[in-house]
Amino acid sequence: MKHNIDPKLDLVLERHTDVSPALVWKAWTKPEHVAQWFAPRPWTTAECEIDLRPGGQFKFVMRSPEGQLYPNIGCYLEVVPNERLVWTDALLPGYRPSPEPFFTGAVLLESDGKGGTNYTAIAIHRDEEGRKKHEAMGFHEGWGQVYDQMIEFTKKTKL
Amino acid sequence: MKHNIDPKLDLVLERHTDVSPALVWKAWTKPEHVAQWFAPRPWTTAECEIDLRPGGQFKFVMRSPEGQLYPNIGCYLEVVPNERLVWTDALLPGYRPSPEPFFTGAVLLESDGKGGTNYTAIAIHRDEEGRKKHEAMGFHEGWGQVYDQMIEFTKKTKL
Repeated sequence: MKHNIDPKLDLVLERHTDVSPALVWKAWTKPEHVAQWFAPRPWTTAECEIDLRPGGQFKFVMRSPEGQLYPNIGCYLEVVPNERLVWTDALLPGYRPSPEPFFTGAVLLESDGKGGTNYTAIAIHRDEEGRKKHEAMGFHEGWGQVYDQMIEFTKKTKL
Repeated sequence: MKHNIDPKLDLVLERHTDVSPALVWKAWTKPEHVAQWFAPRPWTTAECEIDLRPGGQFKFVMRSPEGQLYPNIGCYLEVVPNERLVWTDALLPGYRPSPEPFFTGAVLLESDGKGGTNYTAIAIHRDEEGRKKHEAMGFHEGWGQVYDQMIEFTKKTKL
């Protein structure tokens, strides 16, 4: 998938890091790694399950500081190691249409030619209302914070 | 994708034909072929567009005998030549969540070892209500009829 970003409907986070595409890929695709960084602190990860193939499950349960659980269940669409990970909550595992579709997520990794990564994360919404809602929920701060947590994690743990 | 059929949520059409998987695949994936058989007569095809790759468009506009147009726009999910074609109307092309999700469709082709095909078509719904609605719309008659039209077409035109 090459994605043509529609600024009315999509939200985008772009970053550059000296961490390699292979390490970013690992951080994103192993449940024990994802659990370390995917919830924006002080939120935490209660549960993470990954079945890394098109049609497979991406389940993530976040715990708020008050202890409330927020489950998300999605389905992977494209799995291209070290390059492209696409999933959606519009489908459940096995591609079954879901009761509460909100967005499709894409993480695109490109080598910068010097060992690092040009990193693009995209949230693809159904309509302008969905994009605005996600923005108001704090998309830029939230996705920016967990990106920072992810980079910190890859450096600290030497994946 | 291996699909575990859920009889409460899924509808299934199973057939055997002496037409080869390769010919059935052609009939399903070239817009000029699809246009010849995909609308149950006396309905006709007003338009068909196919971008045959995961994330690509499957657009089909049917014309009723009274001349009314019924557009369907979906997105391919899995494209495995001569074996497996999966698409959904829960996503628009580029995996954007759609305004009116109804079902995911899967066509599975298996060689019968004698040149023919064991053919399975599955409609995967969100909930029991969706499955019942599709059944009441005439799933078995409709998908059965267009299957027959497809086989007739492949034999008549020697793809």
